[in-house]
Amino acid sequence: ATDPPTTVAAAADVVPTGHTTTVAVTAKDMRYHPDTITVPPGDRLIIELTNGDERRHDLVLANGARTGTVERHATARLDAGVIGATVEGWCSLPAHRQAGMTLTIVTGTGTGAHMAAGEHGTEPVRDATAPPTPAERTHRVDLHVKEVQIEVAPGVRQLMWTYDGTVPGPVLRGRVGDVFEVTLTNDGTMDHGVDFHAGALAPDRPMRPIDPGESLTYRFNATKAGIWMYHCSTMPMLHHIGNGMYGAVIIDPPDLAKVDHEYVLVQSELYAGPDGEVGDLAKMQAEQPDAVVFNGYPDRYAHRPLTATAGDRVRIWVLDAGPNRSSSFHVVGAQFDTVYLEGRRVLGPDDPGGAQVLQLGPASGGYVEAVLPESGHYPFVSHSMVDAERGARGVIEVGPA
Amino acid sequence: ATDPPTTVAAAADVVPTGHTTTVAVTAKDMRYHPDTITVPPGDRLIIELTNGDERRHDLVLANGARTGTVERHATARLDAGVIGATVEGWCSLPAHRQAGMTLTIVTGTGTGAHMAAGEHGTEPVRDATAPPTPAERTHRVDLHVKEVQIEVAPGVRQLMWTYDGTVPGPVLRGRVGDVFEVTLTNDGTMDHGVDFHAGALAPDRPMRPIDPGESLTYRFNATKAGIWMYHCSTMPMLHHIGNGMYGAVIIDPPDLAKVDHEYVLVQSELYAGPDGEVGDLAKMQAEQPDAVVFNGYPDRYAHRPLTATAGDRVRIWVLDAGPNRSSSFHVVGAQFDTVYLEGRRVLGPDDPGGAQVLQLGPASGGYVEAVLPESGHYPFVSHSMVDAERGARGVIEVGPA
Amino acid sequence: ATDPPTTVAAAADVVPTGHTTTVAVTAKDMRYHPDTITVPPGDRLIIELTNGDERRHDLVLANGARTGTVERHATARLDAGVIGATVEGWCSLPAHRQAGMTLTIVTGTGTGAHMAAGEHGTEPVRDATAPPTPAERTHRVDLHVKEVQIEVAPGVRQLMWTYDGTVPGPVLRGRVGDVFEVTLTNDGTMDHGVDFHAGALAPDRPMRPIDPGESLTYRFNATKAGIWMYHCSTMPMLHHIGNGMYGAVIIDPPDLAKVDHEYVLVQSELYAGPDGEVGDLAKMQAEQPDAVVFNGYPDRYAHRPLTATAGDRVRIWVLDAGPNRSSSFHVVGAQFDTVYLEGRRVLGPDDPGGAQVLQLGPASGGYVEAVLPESGHYPFVSHSMVDAERGARGVIEVGPA
Ligand SMILES: [Cu+2]
Ligand SMILES: [Cu+2]
Ligand SMILES: [Cu+2]
Ligand SMILES: [Cu+2]
Ligand SMILES: [Cu+2]
Ligand SMILES: [Cu+2]
Ligand code: NA
Ligand code: NA
Ligand code: NA
Ligand code: NA
Ligand code: NA
Ligand code: NA
Ligand SMILES: [Zn+2]
Ligand SMILES: [Zn+2]
Ligand SMILES: [Zn+2]
Ligand SMILES: [Zn+2]
Ligand SMILES: [Zn+2]
Ligand SMILES: [Zn+2]
Ligand SMILES: [Zn+2]
Ligand SMILES: [Zn+2]
Ligand SMILES: [Zn+2]
Repeated sequence: ATDPPTTVAAAADVVPTGHTTTVAVTAKDMRYHPDTITVPPGDRLIIELTNGDERRHDLVLANGARTGTVERHATARLDAGVIGATVEGWCSLPAHRQAGMTLTIVTGTGTGAHMAAGEHGTEPVRDATAPPTPAERTHRVDLHVKEVQIEVAPGVRQLMWTYDGTVPGPVLRGRVGDVFEVTLTNDGTMDHGVDFHAGALAPDRPMRPIDPGESLTYRFNATKAGIWMYHCSTMPMLHHIGNGMYGAVIIDPPDLAKVDHEYVLVQSELYAGPDGEVGDLAKMQAEQPDAVVFNGYPDRYAHRPLTATAGDRVRIWVLDAGPNRSSSFHVVGAQFDTVYLEGRRVLGPDDPGGAQVLQLGPASGGYVEAVLPESGHYPFVSHSMVDAERGARGVIEVGPA
Repeated sequence: ATDPPTTVAAAADVVPTGHTTTVAVTAKDMRYHPDTITVPPGDRLIIELTNGDERRHDLVLANGARTGTVERHATARLDAGVIGATVEGWCSLPAHRQAGMTLTIVTGTGTGAHMAAGEHGTEPVRDATAPPTPAERTHRVDLHVKEVQIEVAPGVRQLMWTYDGTVPGPVLRGRVGDVFEVTLTNDGTMDHGVDFHAGALAPDRPMRPIDPGESLTYRFNATKAGIWMYHCSTMPMLHHIGNGMYGAVIIDPPDLAKVDHEYVLVQSELYAGPDGEVGDLAKMQAEQPDAVVFNGYPDRYAHRPLTATAGDRVRIWVLDAGPNRSSSFHVVGAQFDTVYLEGRRVLGPDDPGGAQVLQLGPASGGYVEAVLPESGHYPFVSHSMVDAERGARGVIEVGPA
Repeated sequence: ATDPPTTVAAAADVVPTGHTTTVAVTAKDMRYHPDTITVPPGDRLIIELTNGDERRHDLVLANGARTGTVERHATARLDAGVIGATVEGWCSLPAHRQAGMTLTIVTGTGTGAHMAAGEHGTEPVRDATAPPTPAERTHRVDLHVKEVQIEVAPGVRQLMWTYDGTVPGPVLRGRVGDVFEVTLTNDGTMDHGVDFHAGALAPDRPMRPIDPGESLTYRFNATKAGIWMYHCSTMPMLHHIGNGMYGAVIIDPPDLAKVDHEYVLVQSELYAGPDGEVGDLAKMQAEQPDAVVFNGYPDRYAHRPLTATAGDRVRIWVLDAGPNRSSSFHVVGAQFDTVYLEGRRVLGPDDPGGAQVLQLGPASGGYVEAVLPESGHYPFVSHSMVDAERGARGVIEVGPA
């Protein structure tokens, strides 16, 4: 089932340099890596395509060159001809192109930011491990609002509004009965505030938006267990949450058992504005996210997975920060024998039934537990498949016991 | 951080009258009130802008006039120049304009309906207090279908299909074991019917659509507790529910405790048709609501809040009438220690956990309870933020104990 | 309330044949059946319209002919004039046309596929009865991936990717402690795989996509009760699930009582591609389904209802296969006294409360039980009304005891 590769003549309107550029491309996870290739104008381009996926792919160029079908783990060599202008490429297997398996050849020098963006493994690292519950019962927390340009997807930088420079903000943790004393400082350029769902109090003063340069103290008692959202309290909140201002507070239930691994995943949406600028409020209002993510980045933990050992009991706290989408949190290959949802354990290991999904609406949360029975790779997703495709997925890598 | 206000010369192509019109505008809740200003052509316009919000705003006009930043509770005076044609204005603080903070100056006489529409406090009043449970065990209810033009949002009138002239229809209440004998009379111009989720029976006769001028009797036993939807049974139900024909029946659980305040909120969507006409079925089919509302009006209870006293236990029954959207019901500053969902109490005050959200899909309901610890303003929202921005929000005003 | 019917003169630019074609049309379920009428050019057309609905309708043609209002179960005769070109028709009662109550008269010979499509009762039959739980404790299952053209809605054929040739695939059933040994054979033209939520194991080998012509064995232990999704594991899963590759596995809870009738409904979405071709991935990505269905076909069981006898206890297992939409499963006229959701019975007959909706997100499931008190027709829907209108509805026909 392999067509012979074709080649093409030199493009008519560019002076051939006589040089050849050779680029290695990997097909993996239904993507080409890199997916932008920069070639000096007039160079002949050779693409060495290695298929790193568990399914077949090919590469077809708009100028007629094509690899023929490339089996799993095989490599094909494609003579793309002399490149004088932009050339589009794609995988011709059914539905792969529509699913985003495309590539662009451009003329120029250097590899550039866009090319690097095609490479995985460059996303900012964020450990999903749940922080330990501190011994002290009063938690003094400094939280700084920072408006920072960060990479939010491969090749996409945005001016995010953040708590402490990351999206989501830091995970806070305590026990029922603890006191949190949060000092919020606005290091940004517009007013921001904070709303902690983890405490009950009159919003008027502690949740008020504050000016750039100002601080406020927000003191609350953690009287109830659960995983609670916090977020900016400045209107329009759709924009402030949609542009990065949210995080999780975990208040342990009194009887919370020790497990082998404990992780925290915050699901949210990305509505990208122009490159380097603030997220697009109109897209938020139209409910058209560019990505749906766990812990702030599409496919996060696909390349640097969460880890466990065969036979481990793993607990995953999940908070749906929205601003708009629900979550159907699922771990491929696992069954949840324990489910905690919005303050209540609804399923435990002694129950004969199990759960495949933790269903969350915006601003709700809980945890699930599963024993991962053998070594291998267990993807996790929002099983709302359009969101999984948008980036709401990752992997738990389970090593041998 | 305050730029000096600017002024502009008279518009070129209008004869100045020599008169000055002065209008007071308040910036509040990310809106200008009024947001349309009518000025006799040729008048000079002065705007006195008072910032009634807890954050800064300004006002910039397309003709170049601008207030500079106006601090909270401050007032600025803007010389808008001689007005000869329509002039657009907006707040230039980040994202405020996109969030809808705009204003229009038009030439004409009188203030007109549109201008009045910009003023809050004109929306029809609807008390959210839950009706008491009647002592009698048989409830004879007259329900009249009325097709009436009502205000559904500031400045927007629609020909709504209603039960008894209001959207939602009346809240009915009883106890497990009660009998409801509803006489439905169709005072409208097309056929309508009713479907009570609160009783079990064969739909064929009682739910049949009836002609204008006809009546039917619908008798059901309330054998199960909960908050149940009722709605028109005429096809296409998407249109009949989407145009106002829904309401709630509360059947008290046997052990329902007395609380200090008990409210009922019905969430639904508005899909506006042309002014004064019936809601737009195409928008309903495309799931593009113009507003998402509690008890039939955007931001209802923002200006006439629900009330309580510090330390009060408040119970809020919530029904999601849809027709299409889910709800993530949340009260800012409160934690739910009690949650009842679709016939079952899933959380109580003795549980160590609490809930931040009551998650409802279309046609489901329940109640939440919280103790509001201190005086202040506790907003409630659907924490699906796009719906909160569309109007699914209000306020509980808590006075000192 | 009946206007006299009108007639129209012959169309100007066609030679009358002198013949008359008479066609019987039924108005039912807010549709005309057939909704396309083919007439030899130049024939006079007579439409005999019978209203089979419980509400009034009419028929208005663009050429001015109209029936006047037709009462329930009445018949009207309409002289449509001499037909020389396409003529559109519709019901003029409020909102009926917008709801899809339209009809087209075209010139030509024969009745053709499109006309047949207008007729109900031609959809493929699928029994919703739950399969019995087999006595054996090891289940050897052969599952063949087949890419087949099937009718997915009246007049719409698609090239569906299926398990064993049907959408959804077969319902599997067992008990806690059973072993399933599934042999998956790929009889298709591209790679496919399978992911069973019903078992816990490392996905790496059993869920791998396999080539056309290959087989794999997938062995899992059913250690937990529930209704579990299975689906294709080939990327992009949005496309493979969206194009038909899903089904349900029921693992009985140990204490599952016998009931009078037990049914299984799988909700899913249809995103139609060109006629006879594969579903449209772009529509899936845009969340714009053409239909939302139970057991693979819009309004399935509307014409061949599920059945029961008055007083029967009926159990309905419901799985939401998505790929994207939630479900608010509801039975009109019934109240659920028993609800089982994601591995846990959350409501039972002894509870004083009842449920109107089983709320499911994508890839979650459960069952509901109700006693249907008297004979009649009990429609079931997703009470997300836009989805009910898209086809997520059917009927339970209850006969006298
Ligand atoms: Cu491919
Ligand atoms: Cu914010
Ligand atoms: Cu502003
Ligand atoms: Cu209706
Ligand atoms: Cu009609
Ligand atoms: Cu698949
Ligand atoms: Na990927
Ligand atoms: Na900090
Ligand atoms: Na407002
Ligand atoms: Na009444
Ligand atoms: Na129909
Ligand atoms: Na089979
Ligand atoms: Zn990758
Ligand atoms: Zn902010
Ligand atoms: Zn799955
Ligand atoms: Zn206001
Ligand atoms: Zn109606
Ligand atoms: Zn919040
Ligand atoms: Zn029909
Ligand atoms: Zn497949
Ligand atoms: Zn209903």
